[in-house]
Amino acid sequence: MSERKKAEDFAKEQKEISVSEFFEKNKHLLGFDNPTKSLLMAVKEAVDNSLDACEEAGILPDLVVKIKNVKEDIYIVSVSDNGPGIVKEQIPRIFGKLLYGSKFHRLKQSRGQQGIGISSVTLYSQLTTGVPTKVWSKVESKKKTHYCELHLDTTKNEPDVIKEEDIEKDILGEHGVKIDMEIHGRYRKTVEDYLKQTSISNPFAKIMYTAPDGTKTTFPRSLNELPKPSKTMRPHPHGMEFGILQRLLQKTSSRTLLSFLTNEFSSVGQQSAKEICKSAKLQDSMKPQDMERGDIEKLIKSMQTSKVQRPPTDCLSPIGEAELEKSLKKEYPSAEFITSIKREPEVYRGFPFLIEVGIVYGFQEGKKKDDDEKREDSIELIRFANRVPLLYQQSACALTDAVKGVDWRRYNMQQSGNNLPVGQMKLVIHICSVWVPFVSESKEAVASYPEIIKETKLALQDAGRKLASYLSGKRRVGEQKRRLQIFDRYSGEVASAIAILVGKPEKEVEKKLKSLIESRAHIKEDTPEEKEQGK
Amino acid sequence: MSERKKAEDFAKEQKEISVSEFFEKNKHLLGFDNPTKSLLMAVKEAVDNSLDACEEAGILPDLVVKIKNVKEDIYIVSVSDNGPGIVKEQIPRIFGKLLYGSKFHRLKQSRGQQGIGISSVTLYSQLTTGVPTKVWSKVESKKKTHYCELHLDTTKNEPDVIKEEDIEKDILGEHGVKIDMEIHGRYRKTVEDYLKQTSISNPFAKIMYTAPDGTKTTFPRSLNELPKPSKTMRPHPHGMEFGILQRLLQKTSSRTLLSFLTNEFSSVGQQSAKEICKSAKLQDSMKPQDMERGDIEKLIKSMQTSKVQRPPTDCLSPIGEAELEKSLKKEYPSAEFITSIKREPEVYRGFPFLIEVGIVYGFQEGKKKDDDEKREDSIELIRFANRVPLLYQQSACALTDAVKGVDWRRYNMQQSGNNLPVGQMKLVIHICSVWVPFVSESKEAVASYPEIIKETKLALQDAGRKLASYLSGKRRVGEQKRRLQIFDRYSGEVASAIAILVGKPEKEVEKKLKSLIESRAHIKEDTPEEKEQGK
Repeated sequence: MSERKKAEDFAKEQKEISVSEFFEKNKHLLGFDNPTKSLLMAVKEAVDNSLDACEEAGILPDLVVKIKNVKEDIYIVSVSDNGPGIVKEQIPRIFGKLLYGSKFHRLKQSRGQQGIGISSVTLYSQLTTGVPTKVWSKVESKKKTHYCELHLDTTKNEPDVIKEEDIEKDILGEHGVKIDMEIHGRYRKTVEDYLKQTSISNPFAKIMYTAPDGTKTTFPRSLNELPKPSKTMRPHPHGMEFGILQRLLQKTSSRTLLSFLTNEFSSVGQQSAKEICKSAKLQDSMKPQDMERGDIEKLIKSMQTSKVQRPPTDCLSPIGEAELEKSLKKEYPSAEFITSIKREPEVYRGFPFLIEVGIVYGFQEGKKKDDDEKREDSIELIRFANRVPLLYQQSACALTDAVKGVDWRRYNMQQSGNNLPVGQMKLVIHICSVWVPFVSESKEAVASYPEIIKETKLALQDAGRKLASYLSGKRRVGEQKRRLQIFDRYSGEVASAIAILVGKPEKEVEKKLKSLIESRAHIKEDTPEEKEQGK
Repeated sequence: MSERKKAEDFAKEQKEISVSEFFEKNKHLLGFDNPTKSLLMAVKEAVDNSLDACEEAGILPDLVVKIKNVKEDIYIVSVSDNGPGIVKEQIPRIFGKLLYGSKFHRLKQSRGQQGIGISSVTLYSQLTTGVPTKVWSKVESKKKTHYCELHLDTTKNEPDVIKEEDIEKDILGEHGVKIDMEIHGRYRKTVEDYLKQTSISNPFAKIMYTAPDGTKTTFPRSLNELPKPSKTMRPHPHGMEFGILQRLLQKTSSRTLLSFLTNEFSSVGQQSAKEICKSAKLQDSMKPQDMERGDIEKLIKSMQTSKVQRPPTDCLSPIGEAELEKSLKKEYPSAEFITSIKREPEVYRGFPFLIEVGIVYGFQEGKKKDDDEKREDSIELIRFANRVPLLYQQSACALTDAVKGVDWRRYNMQQSGNNLPVGQMKLVIHICSVWVPFVSESKEAVASYPEIIKETKLALQDAGRKLASYLSGKRRVGEQKRRLQIFDRYSGEVASAIAILVGKPEKEVEKKLKSLIESRAHIKEDTPEEKEQGK
């Protein structure tokens, strides 16, 4: 080697990096930072996929989740569903190739969106135990169950099938998928938390769960109906970016700019399309492929500022106000007060999204400390994105930022500075969107897009007002009761004084006084309340 | 379509996702969340690459950074260096393909490590302006400069060369690279902050900078010598994972387990290799390719627990204690107190890493508020990873967690709860490693590996003790001065009283008293100090 390293020396070292090698080395980006989280990730990815498949196929999901401790820190995570099954040709790539799937290229709400989740578990299990992922799939009751054992070839990012066969044994009923993954992990209650929260946001799903110690828990359906199926949308003109528009123009089969605009976009009719062309000073008969940079720049500016309708909302599938409330009542039956709200859809980067908020106040469950201590704790924040519970990275999440950005003192809650409010409350936030922007591939926190934070704050304020109304009512009643109690305490003295004054027997006066106090204790609660500034 | 969506229908929608499509849609993962940050990312990726190239080629870096505002929110970021240049065949893939590079597959400290950075700027500029990235490269003074204009074909993740030619015009001196990127952005002072911090952690680099308004700033070298070149290491046995070991065993050209262990790993000599085999109960003459799962499991357990040497540290290139201090003195000449410490290397997941800490106390620069207000502010935390400043996601960073986890009151600093300490201090933390685990591809924060947090805390405590020693000295001197001042104030009265008592002239007594007070004011400061608990 010469004294100084030359360009040619550098050239010899340049090399392609496969996406699997990249994530193998960066496994924490996929959520596999530590054994506890890794075990949860395996459960989560499999459950999310099962729920997506069932929902899309129009099947009420019946899921069976089992975690078995093989030895020391090695676990088998097993998840099976009654979904549509997977055709055998697709199994290897779905489970053994990163960045492969049906959900990335379409604009429609689903739990998965990246094509990374379940294959990342295969990657992680071969990294930590070397045991192949096992998949059983049955697509029709008449057909046999197909069985497949596979690895992921990280240098190529392609599946490596170890074994494949049709089997006689019927383990899946009519149709469905079962998957077994053997991984290095650590078992904690987070798995149950995840399933419990999943059950809240998917009230139409039934999940039967067996913990490593054999304990069985069933999370039943609280709803016997699937949500309305969400539809695929086309891109919205407001969120267009130069490079994307340029590509669409190249690839379109539309022969004029006008038809391009009406065919390729949501919310653009003949009239809006004409207006877009006009304000961009472009001929609407122009051939899309002929457009040059200057034209595209003008077009995009016009598209972004044009007055077109909001994106369609049938691509979204919120939990629903009543459904969320019902779900929460099922999970927290002892709560003092439960409410929920659902906002209208909004848009970021052209993607529609919608926020729902639920509040559970004054829960008894899990009450271990005495009341004084309890009061000091921050509220519990339960975050969902497209019905999937987000259990980690709370402080990096836009939803958390929104909670901290609301002045909860206005709603009779304690809060110091810009921290989470304090008190006996569980706060549920659900963002659903055709594309949730996550801060990392592990999908644990929502990225801080200003539109999302703003809309979430508005949703929280809506819910906060309902809470404040309950709390101030409660406080008023409480204060009245206290006042009457004081009165009651001295009623003996008062009675004897009055008895002397009016010359009647003390007993009689006291009896009358008591009945007066009692009647006052049942005061009506329907008067409008003034919100008051808390401490 | 049939009533219920079938497995076959799903199959038709399954599709490969190119890594560029993935990151185009998730551009916030690459740091392109907002226009301000995007502009900085472009500067940062180019500068980091230039510094890496120069350092590796053994050239003292001379960088020229220029930002030009083309129109409204469109900027051209231009960076040129005097590095070794890039051979023309490599230019397209280095700048126009994600996951391509020389740094991912080796274990050696460098700024880049993922093979994503600079090509992500090409991706972003074509997304936002559609203007191709322009690259000039000269590899030898005798050769012509090569020019290339390129895009990134996102569907294939391959470069798309628009134009390529050798040019006569000499814009690069002897050798080097220049790159022009036109992007959507917003200009803020963060670019200067980044360059200033880069200059602190790379004291051997000279950076000439022209801001959009034409203002020129030079960040000069404070050191005329490059750091000792870091070396590539082999994997360390302690960090081995099952899947990686399995692959190494398959691919090795070593013919026995013994030679496999000594050839493929760091810190494993003949003796340690034999012990590893022995404790795994494996024949050291075994053929690596013949090993089965059970064998590999035994081998890995033995490797992880064996007593082998620590990983080599010549793969790391810390700033250096003296160099960091010098750098800080150059940047903050008015600071009251500057110190720095460098720890010995530690290991996480088999990767060596090392922590350095610098403290700048009592700076005058940028002092706009009055002292009382200033005292209320949190300290400024300046984070570096492999000499690269980390400007975003401070709260998601393991280095920040470590700062919050230290009890700064022990070191005479104010701190409330587990927050950042409060006071006139800049705290510099540098982690260098052959593989820094970042929380996302944008490399803005270090992932929370327990070993990293622990070691960073120890480093902070080391530096904290030096600070405490300075501060308590300062406080003691201050208190003595105050006491003497009080004495001084009453010296007139004391003198007249003494004069009466001893019957000498008041003037004479006062003069003697004054000289006594003065001599006491120059008290020695070398007595050992007791740390005291601050407020």
